[in-house]
Amino acid sequence: MRIEVLTLFPSMFEGVFGSSILGKARDKGIVSLQTVNFRDYANNKHNTVDDYPFGGGGGMVLKAEPIFSAVEELAPPGGDRPRVILMCPQGETFTQRKAEELSRESHLVFVCGHYEGYDERIREHLITDELSIGDYVLTGGELPAMVVIDSVVRLLPGVLGNELSAVTDSFSTGLLEYPHYTRPAQFREWPVPDVLLSGHHDNIARWRREQSLLRTLRRRPDLLEDADLTPKERAWLEKQRSEPES
Amino acid sequence: MRIEVLTLFPSMFEGVFGSSILGKARDKGIVSLQTVNFRDYANNKHNTVDDYPFGGGGGMVLKAEPIFSAVEELAPPGGDRPRVILMCPQGETFTQRKAEELSRESHLVFVCGHYEGYDERIREHLITDELSIGDYVLTGGELPAMVVIDSVVRLLPGVLGNELSAVTDSFSTGLLEYPHYTRPAQFREWPVPDVLLSGHHDNIARWRREQSLLRTLRRRPDLLEDADLTPKERAWLEKQRSEPES
Repeated sequence: MRIEVLTLFPSMFEGVFGSSILGKARDKGIVSLQTVNFRDYANNKHNTVDDYPFGGGGGMVLKAEPIFSAVEELAPPGGDRPRVILMCPQGETFTQRKAEELSRESHLVFVCGHYEGYDERIREHLITDELSIGDYVLTGGELPAMVVIDSVVRLLPGVLGNELSAVTDSFSTGLLEYPHYTRPAQFREWPVPDVLLSGHHDNIARWRREQSLLRTLRRRPDLLEDADLTPKERAWLEKQRSEPES
Repeated sequence: MRIEVLTLFPSMFEGVFGSSILGKARDKGIVSLQTVNFRDYANNKHNTVDDYPFGGGGGMVLKAEPIFSAVEELAPPGGDRPRVILMCPQGETFTQRKAEELSRESHLVFVCGHYEGYDERIREHLITDELSIGDYVLTGGELPAMVVIDSVVRLLPGVLGNELSAVTDSFSTGLLEYPHYTRPAQFREWPVPDVLLSGHHDNIARWRREQSLLRTLRRRPDLLEDADLTPKERAWLEKQRSEPES
């Protein structure tokens, strides 16, 4: 997969693109990750990429030309069209399903603004997807682009090795994870639950499933609707619902 | 405000903590930002911070001891207690309201795992807040911590200068932003809407408000429930709802 990020702050990406999973995926040749400073595409002597809004008001607006020019150099018109993704609060809320969809593409281009608004013609005639990672205000699209890239790249074949487990897969199973414990069995005054030390695999599996169901019920009941539960589990949950939290 | 991040990958934070708003807030002395590698607190000869889960199963689990030791060195027991925030998919969904709440604290400690699960005793006896930035799977808590830190620090007094405007404030007004346009008035075959060039301020204000309402209706109707609308605006929206998208 090929990924480019248009940004005025390429140095923000250095630590993240060089470390951990993204760095390894890059080293293995599974993904290419490039930042492109779209100030290099400003066609004026002051390298201006933003200007005052028509109609007045505060704030600056990113001009259409530099961003069109940069994207068209990365993906010349007439060739294969990449997904061109704008990170913005007005976008569709990013989810694991969207990550899976994007992981099947061969070329992604992210457009990140910073403080400024975007000239609407960028959205209308260049962008294929507008994404928001959540309902909170950030200073730019850079961190959201890193989040989307991380979630997409970890899905590419060959990226996650055996050292990585299902513990991160809360949203794949549709339920929240059960509690984990490791040594020591007694840490300060807090022991590990007896069942986990029992060696009785059926009891352990049942305890974990129940903990997973209970945690989902208490923290994210909205997830239960789409979760893959047996009728017996649904009945058990109904019973828990009517009892006080233990 | 004082912020520390416990992580096994401190280099991931370099680009982000050094750039843009976070870098400026740090330079101005408004916030201190430090990473702490909790591997330095492993009390064993191999510097091990994780171990196999009790009860079997794949994946590794972060041990309680190094994380307790690191947090207790940053905030000695008996003194002021910081908010100790775990970034994890099981956490409360992060929102702008939570950012505002955290921005009133004086000391935040973020705990970031990577691949692994956390020993449950960390959650139960050390963590004050578990946060998730959205319903997608990431390789670690580092990017989510950066997202939360960015959204919190930009709210601190003195961080956002006059060069920054309300254009980023979609979630503060409760409505999505109206479209922005800047020069040129004609870019390729796409002109700026006439009203924005009219110089008629009332018409411009009305057009913008309508566009903002329409965009929210089409993209995020869930936001309209809590938005601050006049009865006339609500009636106008009802009419739009029943008409095809133009």
